[in-house]
Amino acid sequence: MPADPAPEPDAEPSVAWAQPAAERIEAHLETMGDRAWRRLAFVADTIGHRLSGSQGLERAIDWAVTELASYGLENARREKVKVPKWVRGREYARVVAPVERELVMLGLGGSVGTRGRLRAEVAVVSHVDEIAKRGKALAGKIVLIDQAMPPYDHEQRKSFYGETVQARSRGASEGAKVGAKAVLVRSVTARSLRTPHTGALRYEEGVPKIPAAAVTVEDAVFLARSVARGPVTVELFMSAKTVGEVDSANVVAEIPGRTRRDEIVLLGCHIDSWDVGDGSTDDMGGCIAVMEAARILVELELVPRRTVRVVLFTNEENGLRGAKAYHAAHGQERHVAVFEADAGQGAPLAFSVAGDDADLAALEAYAPLFLPFGVTAFVPGGAGADVSPFVADGVLGIGHRPDGSHYFDLHHSPADTVDKIDPDHLARNAASIALLAYILAERPEPEAPAAE
Amino acid sequence: MPADPAPEPDAEPSVAWAQPAAERIEAHLETMGDRAWRRLAFVADTIGHRLSGSQGLERAIDWAVTELASYGLENARREKVKVPKWVRGREYARVVAPVERELVMLGLGGSVGTRGRLRAEVAVVSHVDEIAKRGKALAGKIVLIDQAMPPYDHEQRKSFYGETVQARSRGASEGAKVGAKAVLVRSVTARSLRTPHTGALRYEEGVPKIPAAAVTVEDAVFLARSVARGPVTVELFMSAKTVGEVDSANVVAEIPGRTRRDEIVLLGCHIDSWDVGDGSTDDMGGCIAVMEAARILVELELVPRRTVRVVLFTNEENGLRGAKAYHAAHGQERHVAVFEADAGQGAPLAFSVAGDDADLAALEAYAPLFLPFGVTAFVPGGAGADVSPFVADGVLGIGHRPDGSHYFDLHHSPADTVDKIDPDHLARNAASIALLAYILAERPEPEAPAAE
Repeated sequence: MPADPAPEPDAEPSVAWAQPAAERIEAHLETMGDRAWRRLAFVADTIGHRLSGSQGLERAIDWAVTELASYGLENARREKVKVPKWVRGREYARVVAPVERELVMLGLGGSVGTRGRLRAEVAVVSHVDEIAKRGKALAGKIVLIDQAMPPYDHEQRKSFYGETVQARSRGASEGAKVGAKAVLVRSVTARSLRTPHTGALRYEEGVPKIPAAAVTVEDAVFLARSVARGPVTVELFMSAKTVGEVDSANVVAEIPGRTRRDEIVLLGCHIDSWDVGDGSTDDMGGCIAVMEAARILVELELVPRRTVRVVLFTNEENGLRGAKAYHAAHGQERHVAVFEADAGQGAPLAFSVAGDDADLAALEAYAPLFLPFGVTAFVPGGAGADVSPFVADGVLGIGHRPDGSHYFDLHHSPADTVDKIDPDHLARNAASIALLAYILAERPEPEAPAAE
Repeated sequence: MPADPAPEPDAEPSVAWAQPAAERIEAHLETMGDRAWRRLAFVADTIGHRLSGSQGLERAIDWAVTELASYGLENARREKVKVPKWVRGREYARVVAPVERELVMLGLGGSVGTRGRLRAEVAVVSHVDEIAKRGKALAGKIVLIDQAMPPYDHEQRKSFYGETVQARSRGASEGAKVGAKAVLVRSVTARSLRTPHTGALRYEEGVPKIPAAAVTVEDAVFLARSVARGPVTVELFMSAKTVGEVDSANVVAEIPGRTRRDEIVLLGCHIDSWDVGDGSTDDMGGCIAVMEAARILVELELVPRRTVRVVLFTNEENGLRGAKAYHAAHGQERHVAVFEADAGQGAPLAFSVAGDDADLAALEAYAPLFLPFGVTAFVPGGAGADVSPFVADGVLGIGHRPDGSHYFDLHHSPADTVDKIDPDHLARNAASIALLAYILAERPEPEAPAAE
């Protein structure tokens, strides 16, 4: 017989081996209907939000363990994690002069309380970095950071969260450094129907802790206009406090690998949420998507050579304790890829790759297989906060990049509710993650130039 | 000299006489900048909402009288009107079983209170007319009318408010007829970020009055999903009550006609609002637009032959008392046209004509003059609630029809705030209303076939 022809020097590795699995997952999608969405709605409606330290979080963790076991995953379990318990308590903000008006607000996660009613004149800055420049002129004031988030850029598929969220995360300490009594932050969103958005602040070490709360976009611009006319006094009341540490857990379950059981492809999400809305977008939808992805693999008996491990991290929002605990316990195990779904459940679009060019090229070759689900590309980008310790270790990280044009409209707000998620988007996200997991856990390795 | 040629039998009447005024108004627009919007923001920020019976409404009325006089209008005055005073009081709704969850709600305007905490099982209907069909099965229940408002139809430029608002206006009495304890209504909006929308209900005579409140779209679908899983109990508390009648007033001011002073072209709006948001869209923006329209005519010394009368009606939202009182006092005066701006301050698009075909045809001929402002058409349609008694008398009615695609997103909600209005839209609406008023008050009449 003639010898096989030599491969072209720059030929892409063949991805044809994954085609049958892609086709089976696509066919299975038809049979799934809206079952993933109904599981999400069940958690949203019967448990609701899942703030670290809440009963809701622990109930959701128990539910997920049972659920994953029922799908046929193995070793479905809690892995204990200590998490901080911050409680919002009672809170309000209102203008007391020159008019009386309630403000729609949400204390920022981790904020200290006001120790009674705090009254002060409002000073307005339009960027967090302006606080240091204004300096002592802001002493004794309630500083409003009226920093606008530009609308989502549909052409570039880009939000402006990264820049704008600085006001929320750094505002309190920047304010404290110049002697401000408290900080109000314009909600980090480009779109509002008088909707406040919370989220974590970060107190710098060695800087006094002052209370901080988000106000709505509407109320921020109202305050800014009013201050331009003359002095405005606001009364702020927050009984927020951190009450210590309590037990929580990561949820871990596996599809053990066929031949390389000790090599792990991690499918992650975070099961905790803020204490407003039901946290379906951030991030129970991500958890349901990865749970459903694993369920699809089990149902289709698509057991890859490596282990697929589902991890629902606890306490992503205000501490990353779940991520740190998992890394401490499992960092020595051989993770070949770590994926996190924490960008909402918009229509499937892409996956991001936190790897090198070879990693990206290898995955790009598989992109055509994902077209039936709506995923068109692998793009360079981050993986996710919970898997970032592994990415820092050099493990290939992959992030979920569905359509994010409405993600920050809902993020950390009372409007983050399950009705915002389309059942078809969720099902197709799950199916595309199933295929991704299968490819990562089954593919010959390395596909990069190095020899096996 | 040869005789003038006979006019074509179907020739449109000439509108060229109005061209210079249109050009002057267009040129003036450049100089106005955002001054109208700044006046609107001043009222929004320093007075706020203007519910009938509130101090805010009376302060806004006083402000408007002074403001109109300062523009050079004559006889700027209050015309006394008795209005009902309904107060919201304290209110909440929450699910107490099978989970505990707060609902985001707003009592409906005019609702009775609950006389303490009212607890009952929730029954869900998807249309107000379903209540009568379900009949006694709803007795003793809190009935949720989960009636969805379809999204705005951009092609047809049509909202579905008219159909959907029936649930809000008729729900309480329909519920009472079958023995329901209270009614919850899905907010009448197609778009929500957990935003409740209030508005008036209408109690039928001879039917017991039961409390009624709006819940958000999100909470309505949450309740409907939950009830599909099993019994749900809600606790409703509303201390709402109507406390009697108090003094209020219409604001009236004029540009007296050059030659036919007793013929009136009325420019209307309503100065009252619901007690949430600042009521800029519904309808202080309309008032600022007609005030600014009159101001433009004065500034340009465009004094038409007929009188232009600005009327800011009080109590449109929950009683139309201002409209009725004005009609009672002035119905015998010769109104040649009545206009109302009460459809928000979106981008200028059209005017509607509540008249006959000849009225419409006569106004359509002027449409090209409005193009610089963005108005492209006169269309058949209604005028406005406050001027409806005159339309019923046979007076030509004209309504404002700017882009309404976002109007019902904000309508009667805490999100109805001045930041939603574009200063340029408001200025161009005012300019186009100025031209409309000038044409109506100056045009030769009748232009219709009948002889002068």
